[in-house]
Amino acid sequence: MNKGKLFIISAPSGAGKTSLIKKLIPHMDKLIVSVSHTTRARRPGEIDAIDYFFTSVDTFKKMIHQQAFLEYAQVFDNFYGTAQSSVEQSLNSGKDVILEIDWQGAEQIRRILPDSISIFILPPSTEVLRRRLKERGQDGEAVIDRRMQDAVNEMSHYAEYDYLIVNDDFNTALTELKSIILANRLNIQRQQEKLKVLLVDLLV
Amino acid sequence: MNKGKLFIISAPSGAGKTSLIKKLIPHMDKLIVSVSHTTRARRPGEIDAIDYFFTSVDTFKKMIHQQAFLEYAQVFDNFYGTAQSSVEQSLNSGKDVILEIDWQGAEQIRRILPDSISIFILPPSTEVLRRRLKERGQDGEAVIDRRMQDAVNEMSHYAEYDYLIVNDDFNTALTELKSIILANRLNIQRQQEKLKVLLVDLLV
Repeated sequence: MNKGKLFIISAPSGAGKTSLIKKLIPHMDKLIVSVSHTTRARRPGEIDAIDYFFTSVDTFKKMIHQQAFLEYAQVFDNFYGTAQSSVEQSLNSGKDVILEIDWQGAEQIRRILPDSISIFILPPSTEVLRRRLKERGQDGEAVIDRRMQDAVNEMSHYAEYDYLIVNDDFNTALTELKSIILANRLNIQRQQEKLKVLLVDLLV
Repeated sequence: MNKGKLFIISAPSGAGKTSLIKKLIPHMDKLIVSVSHTTRARRPGEIDAIDYFFTSVDTFKKMIHQQAFLEYAQVFDNFYGTAQSSVEQSLNSGKDVILEIDWQGAEQIRRILPDSISIFILPPSTEVLRRRLKERGQDGEAVIDRRMQDAVNEMSHYAEYDYLIVNDDFNTALTELKSIILANRLNIQRQQEKLKVLLVDLLV
C-alpha cells in the first residue's frame, strides 16, 4: 500500500492559509484536510464531522488521557485537538493529509511523526498583514496591535518548517503549495512503492 | 547571494527527456541547461557554446588532466564532458542548472556535489518504449533489441535518484518536473536566504 504523507501548514492569521487550502483541495486528488476535535459550541451552519468533531469536555479529556491526540491545545475555555486514529486511517488509505495548526501543534506532531512535511505561509509585508487584520472587523488600534503581536509570535517560528511560501499573489502561492505536495509524491520512496508493477515490466 | 541548485536528469532514450527539458526551460525563470564540451565534429545547424562547446581532443585531454570536468565519458571515439567552472558560475549567479546525463555521469556528479538533486524519467511501458525506439529510423529488430537492452541497463539505476517521473502524458510529466524544481526553491534554506529583507520586516 502506498501510504500518504502528513503536511503541516502553519501561518499567522492574515496570511491567507485557510483560503489557500480551501482552493487547493479540489485541485488535487487523494488530498484531504484533517478534521479536528473541539469542545467549543457548534456555530450556525457548521456540520459535525465536516467542520469539526464536536465533542464534550468529558470525552475530550478522556481522549487526552488515552493519548488519542497527535496534538491538542486549550484556547481560553475550549479544547482543540487532532485525533491520531483519523489521521492514521487516512494516511493508510493512501491519502495525503493536511493539518492546519499553529507552531506549538506542529512541534508536537514532529515529535510523534518526524517524517511529516511542514510548510509555513508568510504575508508579503507587515503593512499588508496589518491591513488584512484590520479588514476583519471594526476593531480599535489596540486590538489590531495585539493581533499583530500574535502574528509576529507565530512567524518567529518559521525556521522550524521545511518550506516557506509568501502569499503575495494568491495564485502563485497556490501553485507553490501544490508543487510541494506533488514533488513529495514523486520522491523515489513513494514512487517505488506506487510503480512496483511498471518497474517489473520495464526491467525484465 | 541565493545560490542555484544542480538538477541531474537521466532517462533511457525513448523516455522523452530532451523534449521535456526543451519545453520546461521557457516555462521557468532562472533555469538553464548546462552546455557540455565535446570532441565530436559539429553537425550542420549546431552552434558552438549553444549546442556544445566544440573542443579538440588535445584541449579535452588537457581539461581532464586539470580536473576541469564534473563528469566526462568517452563514447566510441568521442569525448563528452561537463566543465565544473561553467556550472559553478551559473549556480553562483543564482540560476538552477539542469544536467542531462546518464547514470554514470550522475554517479560522478553526486560524489563531487552531493547536494545536487537527481531525477529519473521512465517511459510508461516496455511496449511504448519499443515503439518509440522503432520510430527513430528504419532499423532492423536486432538494432531495436540492442537499444532496448541499453534502455533497460540505464533504467536499472533508477533507485539511485531522488525523484521518479513517468512520462506517459507529456503535459503531466512536464508539470511534475516543474514541481520538483519549484518545490526545491521553496525549501527553508533557499527561502531564508532569498527572503532576508522580508523576514526582517515581518519579525520586528
